Amino acid sequence: MTHASSSMTFFGVDPGTRVTGYGVVSVVNNTVEWVDSGVLRARAGAQLPEKLAGIYDGLSEKIARHSPRCVCVEQAFYGKNARTALVLGLARGVALLAARKSGVNVVEYSPLEIKKSVVGSGRATKEQVSYMVHMLLHPPQESAQEDACDALAAALCAFYHHKAGEVLATGR
Amino acid sequence: MTHASSSMTFFGVDPGTRVTGYGVVSVVNNTVEWVDSGVLRARAGAQLPEKLAGIYDGLSEKIARHSPRCVCVEQAFYGKNARTALVLGLARGVALLAARKSGVNVVEYSPLEIKKSVVGSGRATKEQVSYMVHMLLHPPQESAQEDACDALAAALCAFYHHKAGEVLATGR
Repeated sequence: MTHASSSMTFFGVDPGTRVTGYGVVSVVNNTVEWVDSGVLRARAGAQLPEKLAGIYDGLSEKIARHSPRCVCVEQAFYGKNARTALVLGLARGVALLAARKSGVNVVEYSPLEIKKSVVGSGRATKEQVSYMVHMLLHPPQESAQEDACDALAAALCAFYHHKAGEVLATGR
Repeated sequence: MTHASSSMTFFGVDPGTRVTGYGVVSVVNNTVEWVDSGVLRARAGAQLPEKLAGIYDGLSEKIARHSPRCVCVEQAFYGKNARTALVLGLARGVALLAARKSGVNVVEYSPLEIKKSVVGSGRATKEQVSYMVHMLLHPPQESAQEDACDALAAALCAFYHHKAGEVLATGR
């Protein structure tokens, strides 16, 4: 995919210690297009510090490659389990750090805000989000794993909010 | 404080998004000594990615300066609040990454294990831990904030486990 020099690129991340999804969309002539997406998988048997380094290095490399207008990291859903929340936090912290260290704007949106901006309803199911991502972006099948789709949805959400004229604050 | 070239240094971290404690102890002639300790404080009003970058940069610099045998990151106490756990996870992820990126061994011990190895009981109070840290290490008053003491306790715990012949695994 070639980039018009006037294009604006938005980078989405769905962080997780085992699988981290990333998705990149570009806006060319007011049309949003798929650029890149996929998942970073931890090596089987890798220990926590190594997993976190893999997320950090992988995201840093992809962000540098695409020079996005901003990086949108999906806010974790707390759920009810403090242990799960802690593990989610580990991956999110590293993703936010990679974005910050890349020198680009960092935004965060909740799963509800992402669903609302992509599907029109904060109560949309995962399937509805995936459907809309496919309809709008036509990602290649091998780049459309569930976590990659969630990351593309985060990138779309950042684009829509940018279009709506919202200030892209660094973190919130 | 001068280091004997045969000394071994242990680095402890008590991570938090607002205040991260660090503590460094050295073992010279079978005696454990205070080397350095203190807290990294986020700039008031800093947003999350900036706070995380501050923790990462600060810890990376201190680890590089002291070249420890290992870095011990205190495991978070989950508590019952998933939101709190998530925020703790952010700081811990970045601390583990800084340790890993520094190329040193990374170990994690729970608050219970740390209390047990420093005071002799997993049910010890914070005051008892602080008392033992002061008794053993005599940290200067300006380097003995609560989070710095907790980090020194983590460093002591890593030393005791090392002394006991445990393998210093990278993460657990």
